[in-house]
This record gives sequence, C-alpha cells and structure tokens, in this order.
Amino acid sequence: MQVELIIGRNPITEAIKSGRTVEKLMVSKGSEKSLSQIIAMAKDKGIPVYYNDKSRMDKISGGGAHQGVAAYVSSYEYCEVEDMLKYADEKGEDPFLIILDGLEDPHNLGAIIRSADGAGAHGVIIPKRRAVGITGVVAKASAGAVEYANVARVSNIVQTIEKLKKEGFWIAAVDMSNTPYYESNLTGKIAVVIGNEGEGISKLVKENCDFTVSMPMKGSVQSLNASNAAAIVMYEVVRQRVAAKNNK
Amino acid sequence: MQVELIIGRNPITEAIKSGRTVEKLMVSKGSEKSLSQIIAMAKDKGIPVYYNDKSRMDKISGGGAHQGVAAYVSSYEYCEVEDMLKYADEKGEDPFLIILDGLEDPHNLGAIIRSADGAGAHGVIIPKRRAVGITGVVAKASAGAVEYANVARVSNIVQTIEKLKKEGFWIAAVDMSNTPYYESNLTGKIAVVIGNEGEGISKLVKENCDFTVSMPMKGSVQSLNASNAAAIVMYEVVRQRVAAKNNK
Repeated sequence: MQVELIIGRNPITEAIKSGRTVEKLMVSKGSEKSLSQIIAMAKDKGIPVYYNDKSRMDKISGGGAHQGVAAYVSSYEYCEVEDMLKYADEKGEDPFLIILDGLEDPHNLGAIIRSADGAGAHGVIIPKRRAVGITGVVAKASAGAVEYANVARVSNIVQTIEKLKKEGFWIAAVDMSNTPYYESNLTGKIAVVIGNEGEGISKLVKENCDFTVSMPMKGSVQSLNASNAAAIVMYEVVRQRVAAKNNK
Repeated sequence: MQVELIIGRNPITEAIKSGRTVEKLMVSKGSEKSLSQIIAMAKDKGIPVYYNDKSRMDKISGGGAHQGVAAYVSSYEYCEVEDMLKYADEKGEDPFLIILDGLEDPHNLGAIIRSADGAGAHGVIIPKRRAVGITGVVAKASAGAVEYANVARVSNIVQTIEKLKKEGFWIAAVDMSNTPYYESNLTGKIAVVIGNEGEGISKLVKENCDFTVSMPMKGSVQSLNASNAAAIVMYEVVRQRVAAKNNK
C-alpha cells in the first residue's frame, strides 16, 4: 500500500470529502482557527490530528506551500462486491463473504482480513462511513493480507445484503442468541456479518439477516472480541464445507 | 485490578526484581545516569520508561522523596496451576487449560483471556519472563475477564507441561502442520499451547507437546493472529465436548 503526502487546504479538503483514506492530518500550531473546518471534518471521520511547529511543517512539506496543513493519504485499491462473486466463480467455489457493520478498531479489521484470507473467504465488505478503512495500521495488523484480499467499501450495508439475498446468499449475523454457531448450517452461498465492537450489529442490518449464530458464553463476559468471534465463525464455515464435501 | 504508585530507588528495584507487574516507570530528567541500572532492568522487562521534569515528578509523588524515580505497579492476583485443576474438579469438568509460550502483545493476551472465559477454560498459564503480564492494557482488552479468570505465571513452561502430562493431560500445540484442528480429538484433559506472535512456539516446548493442530491456510498469509488462532481452537474444544456428550 502506497502512502502519499498532500499539502494545502483544497487538496486535503477534497481528499477527505472523496472518502480517500487519510492516515493522519498535520496542522501548523497557530493555524487551528483558520483550519477549524478541515479539523472538524477530519475528527468526524476519526482521522488523527497532530499539531506541529511551523518549522516542522515547512520541513515535512519540503518547502511546498502547505497553508498550515498537510496529510498522509494512503491509496488502497478497493474492489467491488461483483469482483468477489466473480472470484468465487472462477475458483468454482460457493461464494463466502464477510460483512463488517461499523468496525472501529484497526487491529480488529487487520486481524479479520488476515483470518478471512486464511479461511479462503472471497472478500470483506466494509461501510464507507463511520467505520475504519484500510490504513497502515490495518495493513500491519493483517500481516500483509490486505495486499491480496478483496475489500469493498459500500454506501449502504442493508442494500448490499438485499442484493446478496437475491443472488441466493444466506446472511448469518454473529450476535447473541441461543443457537450455538456449530448447530447452524453454514454451507452454500454465505455472508457472515460482524458488528461494531461496542454496539454490535445495527438494528436495521440485523433485521435483514436470515439467522443468528452465537458462541456459547460459559464465563463472566457477554461477548468475544470482534476479530476472535469472526475467526471462529469463518473457520466453522471451512470445517462445514470440508465435512459436506466428504459426505457427498 | 488495583494500580498503585511506588516511589524511590529501593522499592522500585525490589518491585521489578520480584516480578510485580510494573505498568510504567517515570524518571526525572537529569537523573538518567544515576538511575541507569533501574532503567536497564525496566527495559529488559519491556516496561515503558517515561522522562519527566523534576517539578512533574514532585507533583506525581505528592511531595514524597522519589529520588528521581516513580512507578505505577498493578497488583493482579495470579493463581497456581493447582488452583485451576481444583476449579475444574469442583465443576465436574475435564480440565481445559491454555498455555501461552511467550506472547508479547497485550491486546492479544487480553483477547485470549476473554475468549478463554467465554469457552469455559479453567485457566491461562503464562511464563514469568520474556512475556507480557497482566497490565491495565491487558485488563481493558479482556473486557474485564481478567478479574474472573485464573491466570498463573510459571518459571518454566516445559516443566509445567511435564507435570500436566503426568496428570493425564494431552498437550496440543497450535502450529503449522498438515493436520486440520477439527480432525484432532480435543476432548478429555487438554492444554492448548499458543506461541509467540513472531517466533511461534519455542523448540523445546514444541518437542514436549503431544500433537499439533493447525488451521488450514487457504490464502496468501502463513498464519493467523495469535488470539484468533487461540479462539478457533478453544471453541473447537467446546464444540467437540458438546458433541461427545450428545453421542454418549
């Protein structure tokens, strides 16, 4: 994944608006007020903001006209959901997708992409807004799997689920319920939905899932770490697909 | 988990030597040289070291005689491996333990303790040296599970494994092999061994394991995140135990 420096108010405003992944925003001390709009946009998107002395900003910008603001932007090539279906088709496999409904922690996102790669999933779908995108931290946490993985960003998770259902997918929500995950049939065309670390799966998305799978919780905590839960269900898909093949 | 401030050279030296969990060491700027031994000990144990102005050190210490050094120490109550066996016995269950051979990332340790709690494991064993202990970061990553979990620190993982084998345990190494984890019998008295994030399980520990279980890796990466791998195998133990019960 390439990381590139951009400087100046307009280029940075456009980059943030267009949804490019901004790794961090650097602001010249003393320019906070005149840059308040850009800073607010960045904070709204969860982009870390750092304040530097003007001399440091000049140095970072290599003498360019930074107007008090610079940003590191990463250029990750997202793909489309259609590409994932095509990829599964080419491999002659039932498509197997992961949908992340508003994950916030880049370490979790990286670990999930890594496990999705290991489990042979055909793609990971994330929302465009209010969720972490592919950053350098995610790439590192994925142990490099982001470079090979199919990751798509969609505007509306519910609409994506509706489309997948029309394609014959079963949509499995990983959430609390009384059904242990190993008792559900996870073979066939399947998409596994993982929710936000704190809030879980949003109500509207949950209502559009076909069924819920859960890990039995035998101790004191109520849920597992999002990436751990995702890994367990993804590998249950692997196990069940192998078992189904052997039983044929 | 309680966190307590200790100040002064002798108390801090003793705390580090005795193996207490030091969250962070704070050193007065200008005292680095006379404190070089304590700083070296701390760095050797992976304790983060921060340098503060003397005025800040005075404030932290509340006017106490800090001699240029202060430390936050957490008092986590570790238990013994024997306690875990007793706990399993009381619950009328086959003991199920997790052994972490040199885990370094506190987020991974926290997530594993959380999943171990969820899967109903009876304890998590970590080495005293060259591994992360229970810190505030671990406690947070565990979503509070550390407060309920049995965690033991042992001087020698190999000796612990030998003792467990004499008790009738099967020792399963989670590592690369050609055996998918779901094809191994994980019922009965079992301890699951997870290795270091970068190096995997150390040679001597691996030699003392009874068998190896692996996740099939269908993509480009060679291994999973340590906590994800641990979660998959722990919940396979849950699944197999339920299946064994139902088949009786």
